[in-house]
Amino acid sequence: MVIRTDLALEAREMIDEERSEEMQKKGKLPNGMYVNTRDTPYVYITDIEILSKEAEHTIGKKMGKYITLEIKNPSLDTNDIQENISRVFSNEIYELIQSIDIEEPRIMIAGLGNRNITADSLGPKVADKIVVTRHVKNMSDLKFDERLGNVCAIIPGVMGITGIETGDIIKGVIETVKPDILFVIDALASRKASRVNSTIQISDTGIVPGSGVGNHRMELSETTLGIPVIAVGVPTVVDALTLVKDLYNDDNIKPLENDTIANMVVTPKNIDIAIDRIAEVVASGFNLAVHRGFGRHEINEYLI
Amino acid sequence: MVIRTDLALEAREMIDEERSEEMQKKGKLPNGMYVNTRDTPYVYITDIEILSKEAEHTIGKKMGKYITLEIKNPSLDTNDIQENISRVFSNEIYELIQSIDIEEPRIMIAGLGNRNITADSLGPKVADKIVVTRHVKNMSDLKFDERLGNVCAIIPGVMGITGIETGDIIKGVIETVKPDILFVIDALASRKASRVNSTIQISDTGIVPGSGVGNHRMELSETTLGIPVIAVGVPTVVDALTLVKDLYNDDNIKPLENDTIANMVVTPKNIDIAIDRIAEVVASGFNLAVHRGFGRHEINEYLI
Amino acid sequence: MVIRTDLALEAREMIDEERSEEMQKKGKLPNGMYVNTRDTPYVYITDIEILSKEAEHTIGKKMGKYITLEIKNPSLDTNDIQENISRVFSNEIYELIQSIDIEEPRIMIAGLGNRNITADSLGPKVADKIVVTRHVKNMSDLKFDERLGNVCAIIPGVMGITGIETGDIIKGVIETVKPDILFVIDALASRKASRVNSTIQISDTGIVPGSGVGNHRMELSETTLGIPVIAVGVPTVVDALTLVKDLYNDDNIKPLENDTIANMVVTPKNIDIAIDRIAEVVASGFNLAVHRGFGRHEINEYLI
Amino acid sequence: MVIRTDLALEAREMIDEERSEEMQKKGKLPNGMYVNTRDTPYVYITDIEILSKEAEHTIGKKMGKYITLEIKNPSLDTNDIQENISRVFSNEIYELIQSIDIEEPRIMIAGLGNRNITADSLGPKVADKIVVTRHVKNMSDLKFDERLGNVCAIIPGVMGITGIETGDIIKGVIETVKPDILFVIDALASRKASRVNSTIQISDTGIVPGSGVGNHRMELSETTLGIPVIAVGVPTVVDALTLVKDLYNDDNIKPLENDTIANMVVTPKNIDIAIDRIAEVVASGFNLAVHRGFGRHEINEYLI
Repeated sequence: MVIRTDLALEAREMIDEERSEEMQKKGKLPNGMYVNTRDTPYVYITDIEILSKEAEHTIGKKMGKYITLEIKNPSLDTNDIQENISRVFSNEIYELIQSIDIEEPRIMIAGLGNRNITADSLGPKVADKIVVTRHVKNMSDLKFDERLGNVCAIIPGVMGITGIETGDIIKGVIETVKPDILFVIDALASRKASRVNSTIQISDTGIVPGSGVGNHRMELSETTLGIPVIAVGVPTVVDALTLVKDLYNDDNIKPLENDTIANMVVTPKNIDIAIDRIAEVVASGFNLAVHRGFGRHEINEYLI
Repeated sequence: MVIRTDLALEAREMIDEERSEEMQKKGKLPNGMYVNTRDTPYVYITDIEILSKEAEHTIGKKMGKYITLEIKNPSLDTNDIQENISRVFSNEIYELIQSIDIEEPRIMIAGLGNRNITADSLGPKVADKIVVTRHVKNMSDLKFDERLGNVCAIIPGVMGITGIETGDIIKGVIETVKPDILFVIDALASRKASRVNSTIQISDTGIVPGSGVGNHRMELSETTLGIPVIAVGVPTVVDALTLVKDLYNDDNIKPLENDTIANMVVTPKNIDIAIDRIAEVVASGFNLAVHRGFGRHEINEYLI
Repeated sequence: MVIRTDLALEAREMIDEERSEEMQKKGKLPNGMYVNTRDTPYVYITDIEILSKEAEHTIGKKMGKYITLEIKNPSLDTNDIQENISRVFSNEIYELIQSIDIEEPRIMIAGLGNRNITADSLGPKVADKIVVTRHVKNMSDLKFDERLGNVCAIIPGVMGITGIETGDIIKGVIETVKPDILFVIDALASRKASRVNSTIQISDTGIVPGSGVGNHRMELSETTLGIPVIAVGVPTVVDALTLVKDLYNDDNIKPLENDTIANMVVTPKNIDIAIDRIAEVVASGFNLAVHRGFGRHEINEYLI
Repeated sequence: MVIRTDLALEAREMIDEERSEEMQKKGKLPNGMYVNTRDTPYVYITDIEILSKEAEHTIGKKMGKYITLEIKNPSLDTNDIQENISRVFSNEIYELIQSIDIEEPRIMIAGLGNRNITADSLGPKVADKIVVTRHVKNMSDLKFDERLGNVCAIIPGVMGITGIETGDIIKGVIETVKPDILFVIDALASRKASRVNSTIQISDTGIVPGSGVGNHRMELSETTLGIPVIAVGVPTVVDALTLVKDLYNDDNIKPLENDTIANMVVTPKNIDIAIDRIAEVVASGFNLAVHRGFGRHEINEYLI
């Protein structure tokens, strides 16, 4: 049975469900896999570390660190909620940047996906809202606010529109721009409807081929690009087939509809609004993590 | 078991499924219900007439005429396909206008729905593409192409944005503009994924409350508005709950996910593109039906 | 020499320029015209009252009250500036509503113009951001925040798209919805580049035919609509011909270019952004004026 | 007197205007400059070649070839007109590709400018409509229409949004993608209102710094990028200051307004529509030039 998920959290849940009762009693994880949870007022955080090939194989996710933020109030309908979730996300991003341990790192943020397909537009929407400074940092004679970090952002587009692998575009730009760290943002597919637009996964493994709503196939990771790559993903859809199969633990659905459903996704009715809100939260989080000491509204004033 | 559909065609199918084997052998429809099918190269057409209260009750759809066009190649990816389907739709609309039997009828087209929600934006998108002429027809001293009919179009918006029932806006505008016939276009919910963006329902019953993707509640019909009302609807989503229940003939799905799924819909991955294409086909069909004797590209040249 | 302006303030300036030196020494205004100025930290306010037919004729603007807000920092690039200007505008709107003296007035806001033409999109953009409540106020069994006023909003579209005079649509909707006060928002043409997107004119005279960027021809006023009409306008362009003629006090420009320039407008390079910002300021001002006792961010949380 | 123009055609006109009567009688061009004109039913074509440093200095445009298409009916409001102009443009592009003399050249098209600023959005809009094939050409096992060329397209964004020089992004992508020819499309500034959205300049000189509506500063040319660079530009605005100064042959305009006007541009009232139309014509022209033997509608069917 093929259940499609881009979330390590869900991959782990699936293992749980399938393990024998005996194992579940013991509650044992695969060797080399560590799970920790943290509770905050607005967000429930799960840290998963996959440190062995055995765990990588069992869980079906690459070795590395996965941080999953589950937003408790996914409507994101007050400034207070948005601000708090941005702050939590910002702190996680900041910690990751610190752990890479480069003084005044040059940061590049790549917004993956197709801006003309609502469910796939998260990456471009986030990138549009990043306060970029690399071009002014490069003007040595210019005085400016010392709190601002060194940041640039690109929107590489999708292969169907450009005719070029997303990875090839990013690789080329990295070669001329030479950032120290790359963040990639992409829309993901989740297994559960309840996680759509309400979960943020951060991982230091890069993005593996075949992920996401779109069709980005070349791996974007430190291995292929030569610099640390941190992937940030938000599930914006559930595969319709996954939803149905998952609810029934059943692969055997009516054959006639199967083909049609294979090209369909499950989304909230208000997906257009929901994507705008989560993009705003993620972008604010980035801005607060890379430019230190600003308020959320204050840093937004640098946008154009 | 509540299966949500706005299509008379599907309401009829559901009756079929539920009837006793005995009745199915006889193939009997409820008294006062007539079904006819027509096959064309690009479109399969089903005419349903509901002429008795008994049939109305059994089928759950108001008395009147329902014409359902099922597009055989729903990708709509060549000009030839688009042109042919526009023509078939146009002919049905033209026949309905003729049957109302008013010489040079003044026609109003209302595009219902919320233009900011992709799945609900069909109505506004169609209305934007209608070649309107009422304002120039009213200038008596102006010479113009005699093939052009008398057409106007409005986009009333949705109650959550305007604070006004869609029906109240339309009723008011009709009182000052005094059209002879009203067409309303809206996005619908279907029961089957295969019908999404590939089916056009035309009916002379108006729109009943609670239909559609949005939340238009006041009935729009000859009864409430005083002029013939022809509703044109295209299913753009399937309720996620309907999809799941329908596939399993089962109301008993996992309770935890139920609430979330209740606010979700199933759409094609490429819904943004699919809606643009079907809107273009429907708008062209309207333009060809109300302005007689033009080619599809020729009439489009009148758009601004 | 035809100088095109929709601002009473500028009409008055033009009179000033043309009067004889003798009159200018005396500083005399036409009989029945009163001008008062107020200075605030963020906005310079001019109140003009035209109370006689003589003044109406001399100044070329209808009898009534004109309040012009000139924003001192038109970049509107901090929250603080936006908030302060919204507050000033809000106070003027609130005073006008109070002066009409209806307890709990039902307010309708009409956003005029064409949302697909950037320079003409101010009205629709403002209307999209109004917190509407009429539909919930009408549900008698619902409890809700007592600070919320009774507000609805419509976007009638432009005649070239609808085939209907804007005035006819509004008149019809007023008849069914029966508001006590109508606000109309529209993009205007100014005479001076420095006033574009930085001036807000409020008047109780309604909108006279021929105004604005678009082509709204039927007068919208208490005379034609039967309820008080308050017009809010923001110049978003200068007619190219006006700019040129005005700079040179000269009608005699090179004839060949004249025709082309007649269809051109002068706008800021960043008009897309500038319109979004002033629309946000105006909409916030409205929301704060009609729903009393909220903060700017707090009331915005009611938007969907 | 500083007159801003990006068109070689206009630079030449300005020289004409300034030359002594004596020289005008002789009609002499600078040494090393050749001008040829061609008339077609829909487009008036001027070929300018600048072959000497003297001519480069006199005319203020880099050595190379400039082809200027002046569209006779700039409203572009029928399919027939659009088709014909696309064909003329297509032929010029095809000739240039042929003259570079590479068998089955790999072509990259870069759409410069800011898609969120209407007047600067031409490049991104054209790039969105290019039929890209490079990704499928690279799949050796796939059979496809032999008429399709090898094309890819990128939208690098603008420095204010990305923090990266446009040239650095393109340089990087060229290094990984290795095209044989680069086309860059950009919105330009013209000197005359009558040329806005109705003139297409093609040149083999690349784009010189400081051109365009936006702020692309690094030269994009064979010198900096290592492959032939053909620039395609369409004026979408006139600098307001240029318009005024040019009409009056006068630098001495009212000082107070000068600063404001410096940030303003003159555009057609309907710029949003006009840009969409010329983008469609240019994109079709590209598609017909690089994919040989298609009809205009036929090739467009390959778009998504």
